[in-house]
Amino acid sequence: MPIYKAPLRDMRFVLYELMDGDGLAALPGLETFDRTLTDAILDEAARLCETVLFPLNRSGDEEGCRFENGTVATPDGFAEAYRLFRDGGWTSLACDPAYGGQGAPATVATLFQEMMCSANLSFGTYPGLSHGAYVALHGYASEEIKARYLPKLVDGTWSGTMCLTEPHCGTDLGLIRTSAEPREDGSHALFGTKIFISAGEHDLTENIVHLVLARLPGAPKGTAGISLFVVPKYLPAEDGRPGLRNAVACGSIEHKMGIRASSTCLMNFDGATGWLVGEPHKGMRAMFAMMNAERLAVGVQGLGLGEVSYQNAVAYARDRLQGRSLAGAKAPERPADPILVHPDVRRMLLTARAHVEGCRALALWAARALDDARHHPDPSERRAADDFVQLVTPVVKALLTDLGFETTNLGVQVFGGHGYIREHGQEQHVRDARIAQIYEGTNGIQALDLVGRKMPAHAGRYLRRFFHPVADYIDAHAADPELAAFVGPLAKAFGRLQQATATIARRGLSRPEEAGAAASEYLHLFGLTALAYLWARTAEVSLPHLGETDPDGYYRAKVATARFFMERILPRTGALSAQIMAGARTMMDFEDAAF
Amino acid sequence: MPIYKAPLRDMRFVLYELMDGDGLAALPGLETFDRTLTDAILDEAARLCETVLFPLNRSGDEEGCRFENGTVATPDGFAEAYRLFRDGGWTSLACDPAYGGQGAPATVATLFQEMMCSANLSFGTYPGLSHGAYVALHGYASEEIKARYLPKLVDGTWSGTMCLTEPHCGTDLGLIRTSAEPREDGSHALFGTKIFISAGEHDLTENIVHLVLARLPGAPKGTAGISLFVVPKYLPAEDGRPGLRNAVACGSIEHKMGIRASSTCLMNFDGATGWLVGEPHKGMRAMFAMMNAERLAVGVQGLGLGEVSYQNAVAYARDRLQGRSLAGAKAPERPADPILVHPDVRRMLLTARAHVEGCRALALWAARALDDARHHPDPSERRAADDFVQLVTPVVKALLTDLGFETTNLGVQVFGGHGYIREHGQEQHVRDARIAQIYEGTNGIQALDLVGRKMPAHAGRYLRRFFHPVADYIDAHAADPELAAFVGPLAKAFGRLQQATATIARRGLSRPEEAGAAASEYLHLFGLTALAYLWARTAEVSLPHLGETDPDGYYRAKVATARFFMERILPRTGALSAQIMAGARTMMDFEDAAF
Repeated sequence: MPIYKAPLRDMRFVLYELMDGDGLAALPGLETFDRTLTDAILDEAARLCETVLFPLNRSGDEEGCRFENGTVATPDGFAEAYRLFRDGGWTSLACDPAYGGQGAPATVATLFQEMMCSANLSFGTYPGLSHGAYVALHGYASEEIKARYLPKLVDGTWSGTMCLTEPHCGTDLGLIRTSAEPREDGSHALFGTKIFISAGEHDLTENIVHLVLARLPGAPKGTAGISLFVVPKYLPAEDGRPGLRNAVACGSIEHKMGIRASSTCLMNFDGATGWLVGEPHKGMRAMFAMMNAERLAVGVQGLGLGEVSYQNAVAYARDRLQGRSLAGAKAPERPADPILVHPDVRRMLLTARAHVEGCRALALWAARALDDARHHPDPSERRAADDFVQLVTPVVKALLTDLGFETTNLGVQVFGGHGYIREHGQEQHVRDARIAQIYEGTNGIQALDLVGRKMPAHAGRYLRRFFHPVADYIDAHAADPELAAFVGPLAKAFGRLQQATATIARRGLSRPEEAGAAASEYLHLFGLTALAYLWARTAEVSLPHLGETDPDGYYRAKVATARFFMERILPRTGALSAQIMAGARTMMDFEDAAF
Repeated sequence: MPIYKAPLRDMRFVLYELMDGDGLAALPGLETFDRTLTDAILDEAARLCETVLFPLNRSGDEEGCRFENGTVATPDGFAEAYRLFRDGGWTSLACDPAYGGQGAPATVATLFQEMMCSANLSFGTYPGLSHGAYVALHGYASEEIKARYLPKLVDGTWSGTMCLTEPHCGTDLGLIRTSAEPREDGSHALFGTKIFISAGEHDLTENIVHLVLARLPGAPKGTAGISLFVVPKYLPAEDGRPGLRNAVACGSIEHKMGIRASSTCLMNFDGATGWLVGEPHKGMRAMFAMMNAERLAVGVQGLGLGEVSYQNAVAYARDRLQGRSLAGAKAPERPADPILVHPDVRRMLLTARAHVEGCRALALWAARALDDARHHPDPSERRAADDFVQLVTPVVKALLTDLGFETTNLGVQVFGGHGYIREHGQEQHVRDARIAQIYEGTNGIQALDLVGRKMPAHAGRYLRRFFHPVADYIDAHAADPELAAFVGPLAKAFGRLQQATATIARRGLSRPEEAGAAASEYLHLFGLTALAYLWARTAEVSLPHLGETDPDGYYRAKVATARFFMERILPRTGALSAQIMAGARTMMDFEDAAF
């Protein structure tokens, strides 16, 4: 049976000891989120995820969603779990108190998201998409629309979707064909087909609020002519409750590699009634607001799946007896040693562990900056924090999902053949993790966002929000012999990142394809350097605790994992750097016909 | 609809231009295998794989195998396809003419295997396992057993299995509990349960021949007490045809991540009649003979799946219009450019291509050596060739399946969201490829085999079969300016490999865990260096053809891909080298309780 225990000890370490979680309550609007409340939330979240959501993860995958006569049935138990989820107030956790939300910090919401993704990613897509719709409406809709929809999304009686992709366009939203015809009453009639709509139809809520990208008549070509509309499944009646059925319907659901309990719908809009959200032709703005929040959340999916896969791999490695330690039997009284003794198994487990814990720190760093960007009283601090969030959002999305996929595959490999069969749940984590590298902008698109938009933005201002603290940290600790094993490798990786940054910027000036050709490797070089910084800080924070104050060895393990990261994972930056430096020539000069 | 065309042009290049395929007919026993016959076989194999096996690949995955009342039904069409397969003589291709085989060279059989794996890996497991059983019987069984079973396995009316794994042991076969009790008639009664038995039960053949590892009474502990038995599903009657049902039965089948049309069976032996193969307690020897052949074949599975995934990714990248080239519109008359214009898409495609073509060359190199090992008239040449096969078998198995998995994932990524849904077949290749990293010895076990057995064997004699030709090649071409772009990077990687080899050998003397901790990275360092050597040779062979003699640009593409490999893939060896040099400490000193 698969297992999952929320890693609360590590979450608290990252939140309080690395990311100044105690400082959250000093921010206006977050006063109540002191350690007492935050810990209580995390404990309760863990209970929900461990006992309600996780037990439905395997059965949900086996059963999948069922499509019949335009309706989608979620797997057994999902409706009841959603009721508990909603009744527990979890849909409102990170929402505006003005609409019934609890206004929790992004840091706390991120840790909750991680637990949800570990426990049941498919389930998490339903409230996840609702939150995306909430963000777009909260940021851009009229007061009237907000008053009508936000309380329902916040209390979870309604859910939301984001309808972007069409059969012929996903990444390139400029090609969208869905049209919106104005009506005399101020509403619009929407016509078109959207695909890959997560949670587009299901049986968890009394209404579903679609946010739909579409074109108004005479709209400019490309993304400058796209508007955003809110299109509810049931039109709200005068009393605010679901009234008439709208002309939007699910035509089919996709059969997918993973997240099989998440309904992925083709949605037909046949003159469906919708209302404009924000200004005409400015739909991409709201879409990006929502997308940025979602990208961080998708990164956390990779993290959460890596965590649960790691936990199961460790349990298996302790239990499974196979072979003897190369250094002599460790359990001579048993027929064989547990496979945990084998160096290659330990390599896989430590790689997974270093990924997961490092990625948790990176996700929390971004979330902590988001909290500052939203709540800090000083506008320049807010801007600085927002700059950082802008910069690292694509890194969090792509790095955490790439490493998450790698980690879940290590989790299968530790199990050997038993990892490949469905019974133990490890292969499901791989299938579930694979989508996170694709949706909300493929990881290639994240890399282009990093090198093409974020790197040059404001003459490098975003970049400096990362480069300056890291450079300062290296300078401050370069002479500390206790930290040399951590700061030395960090400095080397950081040097590679600086050189790659300068090279890409210079080459990209004359040939934009140079930046494109370097993008994916650059994102990983950036991301691994960020992890190295966080692992160095982790070691710095942990070293003073070694010895008496560390009875359970928590800090010792932190230092040891940091060391492993520096010696066995960070060297990848050398290869990435060489690949970047090689330039675009080999891929751009290749003749199209020869592929 | 997924596509597959056998890459005959490239197969012929590797066979004839890189691996002296024309020299095969000069080997005693292979006289008929000149270019005319070989090409005819490959053409016919391509037709079978493209038109018979490939069309059943997706439907086979959707349908899976069905277990009912002890029998297994393969998916619709498999039985008819198997009939065509058998009638076409494909089961006998690589078998001994003494038993009705065609005696084809390993090189030709390997190319056929690649096509089968591209077209329908699940289907390929049925004849694949039969061939494994054939190899073990052919090498170790008595004349009587051979006469009874081999003709049936060769003509494909019967199939075979290999029953090794038990619920509590896979890698560590020393723990096997299945027992064999001698009977007065010279047969044995087998008792026990085997799991993960591919093709253990199915509806394709009139009989199934199980090769079973079991213990005789009083057998020594561990692998020194394991014997091999042949246990047919139906006991052959006097006339050689299937007679009485034997007491071996399928108890259930596994539900797996992939290869869903391949039946993976739990087999119960309840006093089943079996006959000893080879000497008592020497079963591991026959098992290894079979296993080595299988390991090369499993490597080819990664190659084949990479190839078909690449072909589909290229087709999609040409068709799918999305965004504009960073260098300005390439198809201004269309709403967007094909995604083939984007550097990151080209990076993924070229990575896939360089993997696949390089791995094909490596697989053929091993197969060509196998042909020499079997047929060369000079015993010292035979031994040298066999040394090489011994050495590279784990490398072929692990490298080709690891790169195959990476390649199929790139193939999904190029498709974006469309790669994640089942419709296009790309995600199936990922799920199918995943098993190849696990079965026939996990890739971690392959790495241990390389560093623990093959590296030190005969004071490094195996190793020299690789190191000497590569060193000689580098020496011979170091001064050639035309080859500098290829031989330079090869020499650098080779230097890293030499250093890593010496370091591991030295450290491993005092601490065997050092070798274990370095093994996986060392295998990849070795494998990438081997690919670099093959890509350098490919460039050397191709360069003279550029220009007039290369009307379709085939050789130009070869040189360009070689360049891409050197600049964008080979740098990974730098990271691998650093990881190896870091040693075992970080993973072995980590406290068990802290995982």
